[in-house]
Amino acid sequence: MSDDTEIIAGRNSVLEALKAGRSLNKILVAKGDRQGSVRDIIGQARKKGLIIQEVDNAKLDQLSAGVRHQGVVALAAPVAYADLDDVLAAACEKNEPPFLVLLDELADPHNVGAILRTADATGVHGVLIPKRRSCPLTQTVAKTSAGAIEHVPVVRIGNVAQTLKALKKQGIWVVGADMDGTGDYYEAAFTGPVVIVVGNEGEGMGRLTKEACDFLVRIPMRGKIASLNASVACSLLLYETLRQRGAKG
Amino acid sequence: MSDDTEIIAGRNSVLEALKAGRSLNKILVAKGDRQGSVRDIIGQARKKGLIIQEVDNAKLDQLSAGVRHQGVVALAAPVAYADLDDVLAAACEKNEPPFLVLLDELADPHNVGAILRTADATGVHGVLIPKRRSCPLTQTVAKTSAGAIEHVPVVRIGNVAQTLKALKKQGIWVVGADMDGTGDYYEAAFTGPVVIVVGNEGEGMGRLTKEACDFLVRIPMRGKIASLNASVACSLLLYETLRQRGAKG
Repeated sequence: MSDDTEIIAGRNSVLEALKAGRSLNKILVAKGDRQGSVRDIIGQARKKGLIIQEVDNAKLDQLSAGVRHQGVVALAAPVAYADLDDVLAAACEKNEPPFLVLLDELADPHNVGAILRTADATGVHGVLIPKRRSCPLTQTVAKTSAGAIEHVPVVRIGNVAQTLKALKKQGIWVVGADMDGTGDYYEAAFTGPVVIVVGNEGEGMGRLTKEACDFLVRIPMRGKIASLNASVACSLLLYETLRQRGAKG
Repeated sequence: MSDDTEIIAGRNSVLEALKAGRSLNKILVAKGDRQGSVRDIIGQARKKGLIIQEVDNAKLDQLSAGVRHQGVVALAAPVAYADLDDVLAAACEKNEPPFLVLLDELADPHNVGAILRTADATGVHGVLIPKRRSCPLTQTVAKTSAGAIEHVPVVRIGNVAQTLKALKKQGIWVVGADMDGTGDYYEAAFTGPVVIVVGNEGEGMGRLTKEACDFLVRIPMRGKIASLNASVACSLLLYETLRQRGAKG
């Protein structure tokens, strides 16, 4: 859990945030507490597909730093998350083939921030971040993005493989960056509708994610170290796409 | 001053480090202290072209954390710095046109570390870092580099403009990344002997450095944010060079 996220503590405050449609990263409830409005909160959070996590009261005390939390704390995102359909509609309106990025379990907020910055610069329509095991939008992401977080739509997604399947049905090609890629990334075609998938800093893409890719591209590595910084790897593919689409700065 | 650098405290220890030829980032001496072996230390450090900085005794107390510093502290690099002539000779031996990077006042150790990682991956012969106003090699750089710090020669240089002038005399082209560049980076030629210059995170290259460049290339920016993360910008140019040189992963 990030310590730089905005904290909303207390039953009424969390309920209001849910009703107002605020973008929340997670709801934390005290273990075993399922009474009164807490049940209501959990129900509403479930409907919105939010992650609900049970934690010790001590954890909630620590997070809420003196504010009476009544067994419920919500972690809020610094900007609103976008909707995938809206992102695709916006690309369509611009008459551009969709250009998306999916960050598969990226953990480092500095990487997510740097990628948002490159996504803004390369005209990416939307960045997809899974709800589970991925760094959500936090203050550190916002700061590292140098303001790009305000301009690049970020979509929170549930199951990665299912999301990719749905995108494929809409004619979008799924391209993963992987050591086992069949060709160098600058030999692949990024001119059509595309979602570029970048994996976790340590382990790369998960197996199911990799299997969901239409093709895998490799970034050539000539040295002794096996991989690049994740934001560097992702940025290379984004700029290759921009280059192939023939954009002028 | 970085707080993650190895500290060598005390006159004898610093003198020994100097004699052993250890790679030092800086020598700190107490204000006004010019007696006995301190004079000897300053003399030797000057000969090696090291930065000598006068600081308050309190600063030395804080840095040396209980070790008796006797008015002298040296900040050591985690690996040895390389010599520019050796770097060029190594490129020559490999029958490769020199491929160098110069980081002009880069301040963030995470950026320096990520760049070392990409430098390793793209076959860069050496990374040049000015002694003044630039992040030296520290433990944070080493960690972020994922081990690349052990493989990529890093050269500490004095005056940037003079170094570039000397490189030009040896037939090396100086290419700077800049917003005012005359063409997109993927339209420039990186196949010959080249040193790629990347500027400071906030302000880009200094004026004198920019003037020393043979040509400036631009990274296209399609969005609202004016610049990329420095390690991303540098990595794009390094991979463009690798691509043009026709390397296979």
